[in-house]
Amino acid sequence: MFITFEGIDGSGKSTQARLLADHLRGAGHDVVLTREPGGSPGAEEIRRLVLEGDPDRWSAETEILLFTAARRDHLERTILPALAAGKIVICDRFADSTRMYQGLSRGDLRATVDQLHAMMIGREPDLTFVIDMDPELGLARAKGRNGAEERFEDFGADLQRRMRQGFLALAAEYPGRCHVIDGNRAPEAVAAEIAAIATKALA
Amino acid sequence: MFITFEGIDGSGKSTQARLLADHLRGAGHDVVLTREPGGSPGAEEIRRLVLEGDPDRWSAETEILLFTAARRDHLERTILPALAAGKIVICDRFADSTRMYQGLSRGDLRATVDQLHAMMIGREPDLTFVIDMDPELGLARAKGRNGAEERFEDFGADLQRRMRQGFLALAAEYPGRCHVIDGNRAPEAVAAEIAAIATKALA
Repeated sequence: MFITFEGIDGSGKSTQARLLADHLRGAGHDVVLTREPGGSPGAEEIRRLVLEGDPDRWSAETEILLFTAARRDHLERTILPALAAGKIVICDRFADSTRMYQGLSRGDLRATVDQLHAMMIGREPDLTFVIDMDPELGLARAKGRNGAEERFEDFGADLQRRMRQGFLALAAEYPGRCHVIDGNRAPEAVAAEIAAIATKALA
Repeated sequence: MFITFEGIDGSGKSTQARLLADHLRGAGHDVVLTREPGGSPGAEEIRRLVLEGDPDRWSAETEILLFTAARRDHLERTILPALAAGKIVICDRFADSTRMYQGLSRGDLRATVDQLHAMMIGREPDLTFVIDMDPELGLARAKGRNGAEERFEDFGADLQRRMRQGFLALAAEYPGRCHVIDGNRAPEAVAAEIAAIATKALA
């Protein structure tokens, strides 16, 4: 089973991905916890190429190609081998993030993102948790963090609101696999709801 | 006018590209001489990512995505601005090299290469010189060189013959822009024929 976490910055995706991995391991499952962009040695190198340096160094089109190259490597080297070995793969961000971010900044590119995905990736998660979160709260949390993800997090409140709407729209577009989870609660409460849904899906 | 040079390793592509640039500059044209993979700062970084390290670190699919990303950057940052400014662009290798190399090693990927090109590049050269060369002679020349392109040049005579056939097949596929030039002659004789064709095309 291939499970992904999506949501705005500061929504608690990474924490919840880790908590679900812990929970499923506790239940005896073999779990691979990974992230995008990155998740394999080659994809991490591409991640650095895209995220470091001047944010305008790549056009949106080149960036989509680089993210798709990283995702292909991640899929081939990490995700598919783990799934083939019967493991559960939990990934912090996947193609939905590309759809949402590129669609937000350049709506005309959404079709390109989808075509590239169909041609070069061709794999959707079995289960996606979209952590929904008050945009102001998410922004405050994200800004309170240090870390390398400045680029994704250097956004104002208005953009954060539009990103929230973008993720909710994606969840509506893929209702079969997407579960919108209220992230405005204690992490333990959020984790319990996610664990229940995942356990049911695995049964 | 956008002019490209293609051909097997050791065929004299780079020399002929430079000689044509010199000739056209002598005739008063403004010429940008560039190369692939690479040709813009971002594309040169992607080139290093693809060509350095273990040759098996990237799958053919990931490599095609990375080359297409590099080509998109090169097109946006170097080729199209120069053409828009009325300059002549001469490029040592372009999409035909990707078609030929990927088609040779993974024939099933030729359609993917073409789809990615149509979607993300969408530009063919106006004029392509395919320097045809005895494969044994090309290999001897290529092996006599030092340089960073070992990866492309670490091929045996049989592969060199198949690459020659691949380029000739491409030239037949795009007869409108491709001119096959006999490279088994003194560089000055080859250059003179190329200059005559380019001058006529520019008239």
